[in-house]
Amino acid sequence: MITGKNYIGFSLSGNGKITYKTFNPETNRENPTIFIEATSEEIDKALQLATTAFPIYRNIPGKKRALFLNTIGDEILDLGDELIRTYMTESGLAEGRAKGERSRTIGQLRMFAGLIETDHWRQPKIDTAIPDRAPIPKPDLRQLLIPLGPVVVFGASNFPLAYSTAGGDTASALAAGCPVIVKSHPMHAGTGELVASAISKAAKDTGMPDGVFSNLNSGGIEVGQTLVKHPQVKAVGFTGSIRGGRALYDIAARRPEPIPVFAEMGSINPVIITLKALKGRAESIATTYSKSITLGTGQFCTNPGLILAIESTELTSFINDLGEKTIAIASQSMLHPNIHEAFENKGAEVIAQEGTTLVAQYNDETPNNYARAAIVTVSGTAFLNNSNLHQEVFGPFSMVVQCRDEAQLLKVISNLEGQLTGTIIAEQEDYKSLQPLIEKLQNRVGRIIINGVPTGVEVSDAMTHGGPYPASTDSRFTAVGNQAIKRWVRPFSYQDFPEELLPDILK
Amino acid sequence: MITGKNYIGFSLSGNGKITYKTFNPETNRENPTIFIEATSEEIDKALQLATTAFPIYRNIPGKKRALFLNTIGDEILDLGDELIRTYMTESGLAEGRAKGERSRTIGQLRMFAGLIETDHWRQPKIDTAIPDRAPIPKPDLRQLLIPLGPVVVFGASNFPLAYSTAGGDTASALAAGCPVIVKSHPMHAGTGELVASAISKAAKDTGMPDGVFSNLNSGGIEVGQTLVKHPQVKAVGFTGSIRGGRALYDIAARRPEPIPVFAEMGSINPVIITLKALKGRAESIATTYSKSITLGTGQFCTNPGLILAIESTELTSFINDLGEKTIAIASQSMLHPNIHEAFENKGAEVIAQEGTTLVAQYNDETPNNYARAAIVTVSGTAFLNNSNLHQEVFGPFSMVVQCRDEAQLLKVISNLEGQLTGTIIAEQEDYKSLQPLIEKLQNRVGRIIINGVPTGVEVSDAMTHGGPYPASTDSRFTAVGNQAIKRWVRPFSYQDFPEELLPDILK
Repeated sequence: MITGKNYIGFSLSGNGKITYKTFNPETNRENPTIFIEATSEEIDKALQLATTAFPIYRNIPGKKRALFLNTIGDEILDLGDELIRTYMTESGLAEGRAKGERSRTIGQLRMFAGLIETDHWRQPKIDTAIPDRAPIPKPDLRQLLIPLGPVVVFGASNFPLAYSTAGGDTASALAAGCPVIVKSHPMHAGTGELVASAISKAAKDTGMPDGVFSNLNSGGIEVGQTLVKHPQVKAVGFTGSIRGGRALYDIAARRPEPIPVFAEMGSINPVIITLKALKGRAESIATTYSKSITLGTGQFCTNPGLILAIESTELTSFINDLGEKTIAIASQSMLHPNIHEAFENKGAEVIAQEGTTLVAQYNDETPNNYARAAIVTVSGTAFLNNSNLHQEVFGPFSMVVQCRDEAQLLKVISNLEGQLTGTIIAEQEDYKSLQPLIEKLQNRVGRIIINGVPTGVEVSDAMTHGGPYPASTDSRFTAVGNQAIKRWVRPFSYQDFPEELLPDILK
Repeated sequence: MITGKNYIGFSLSGNGKITYKTFNPETNRENPTIFIEATSEEIDKALQLATTAFPIYRNIPGKKRALFLNTIGDEILDLGDELIRTYMTESGLAEGRAKGERSRTIGQLRMFAGLIETDHWRQPKIDTAIPDRAPIPKPDLRQLLIPLGPVVVFGASNFPLAYSTAGGDTASALAAGCPVIVKSHPMHAGTGELVASAISKAAKDTGMPDGVFSNLNSGGIEVGQTLVKHPQVKAVGFTGSIRGGRALYDIAARRPEPIPVFAEMGSINPVIITLKALKGRAESIATTYSKSITLGTGQFCTNPGLILAIESTELTSFINDLGEKTIAIASQSMLHPNIHEAFENKGAEVIAQEGTTLVAQYNDETPNNYARAAIVTVSGTAFLNNSNLHQEVFGPFSMVVQCRDEAQLLKVISNLEGQLTGTIIAEQEDYKSLQPLIEKLQNRVGRIIINGVPTGVEVSDAMTHGGPYPASTDSRFTAVGNQAIKRWVRPFSYQDFPEELLPDILK
């Protein structure tokens, strides 16, 4: 049952006066539940509980914490239809997506549970003493990764499950041994509360300390700001806009004690198509990309927002084909009227820039909040001269840049901001000449895909979901895959410890 | 030969008008060479060269880059007596220390060379495709660590060799595949130029690109600030004061594209002594600690500035003994008159605080710039109530805090800022009851030493030289040991790459 209250540790609490409701973009109506924003006292309480829980929680053996994570997965599944229905009414996303995202969320929890079954992920290192080394003896040194402390996780608008309450940031931080305080995303506060209830139940059932998890409602930005400023918070995970992520990064950097913020932010995910590929299979590329551009109504951080190729008649006909195919795909609801409005405005702004041509735009009558997908084209020169064209339009929108030649295409890549991904569509005969392009692109992105689409982020040990700023605030970490745990831990050395005082894995 | 000029890549350049000299604290006189501060044009040139060198340098095989690092070591050794003499006249440190630090510096270069002989340090991960996985195929994903780009390294005042021009930051960044621009420390600009000449010669002899290394002179803070703001700089390494490190961190965080700054800053390195240890071997502890406190004239970031124990008659006599033994050690020169003056002022400031007692202070006639070592004591209550007592006094100075009981001692630890190290001096019979103390201390430090001294930072795979702020600006990394290379690299994923386009190690 959704109460509209906050989880302050194990307790439901709703002492605040600021309230809000979620919105169903499909019906264009508010959902009924009244959510109560967390007060500063409730925030403080959550942090006090987390700080008290931390030394207990970090010392619970990995196996038992793994059970906690697996139990969260079970409890999420046990929420059954109520969770799926709430998800759908708060996001406008379809049932298939809701269930798929639930699977992914549970899969992530189970992956991190598997990771911490043993302590090997803590990278134990043993470097024994050499007492008779000259000129000075070598001490015994052993090292282990240890958790940072309470972590604040910001729910993401576009992943109500997989990157929100029990999503990748929460799962990796709990796995690391850090208590988590979630700043619930206001667009899907009900989904958030349901998942929070599952986490709370799992924590109680598996003997975790009160305060290992809290879920705070917030309609505006104040709760998040207060959390990032809070002296007892030791790290922050965020998925969302550049503006939002940068604001939190700035707050964290200005604290008396700065703390790490891993913000995974916007990206336009450039796709480069070679002439040979266009000659060989333009139509199939157009089909694949029309689907990738409109997948999830374009509301993925890996959405292909920029396509680069060298001017040719093949490119001209590809662009027209891509436009036709994209607007032939049925329009879908966006997550929220605000997101729909931003999409419309940003798209219109780009289309109004000098040198751009609107190739195609979804033109049929659409219900409220449904996205009108668009394909735009521009010359390489115009693109290079106008940084307004480099911004993300969050939604089903892609811009094809027609470059004069290879040199201009490389220049466009060098002038891009940091990106999560880059994609190269090429024929086998191209491979031997691709290295310069790969080099340039590698310098700007966290992942390169050959002959695929950037959408669909595999949860794998070898995944990098991050990249140079502003794709993320720290390219040295990833938000997806089991290495995401590294964001929340630090190395710690034991020097000349007697055996009995060492953790088992270091004995 | 020392010219006083900057190395802009392979070229000596001295176009500036701002000049300065280094100072011999032993003779209390300026050294003769005139150093010319780098101009903004020279800074720009160094960064342009580094940016051009980066894609070339990062693709040079590890084996060849290892040869470069080893050759730097050889060239430093070839500088012979001139380097040792210059080091001594610019630091006031003794010949033994100069030679020891040279060995350490060369050892670090050879350690990183050994690390990059193969590509295993790049943590290759291969996660192969499952094309028939339902509901969607699993892509082929492979991952490798890649270098961030040009790194700026700030020379440290207290390590003219091991943490300056070719020190740990430079060695690890060059090993990672990043070009390095050193902001030379003004106190030992001659030592810096000699080492820069060795790096430059090694780079030419082993076929490294021009711009892989530059050495910029600077008498004030402007060159450093300009460097950290420079858009082509991708990361910063710093060793020095909290004020200096934080200023650079703030500049980097406010850039349009924020970059990582690893600053290893001040620390007072608490040492906890149990009553049993005092009862068993107070004199030997006092002897050991009087040496550790005065080692290198107390100018180490791991200097034990704070000793904690519970009130007892044994503690009182230990304190007096420690005081006597400390001031019985011959006074030595500090690095520079400014450092000596800061030591005198900060020490006097602490001694003037209410509740402190000066136990002993070196009292004999001392030459200019020689440190008067001091031992101070204070009650746990006074210490808890006055954060002025928590600051580092850089030099041979240590404060003994007499805690009322175990609870107060733990409270003192919890109230400390982040530290590089913590040390516990205890008897075997104490071990079974040490866990709560270790827990508290672990939360505030990067390394705990049992029955040893914090000075002497072993260069080892299992070393953590870092810690919670302000010990460092990011506790997730270490400045010493081969894992220091992780500060300069990021994960990168190859998705569905054809074999021929993959790096060898990922094939």
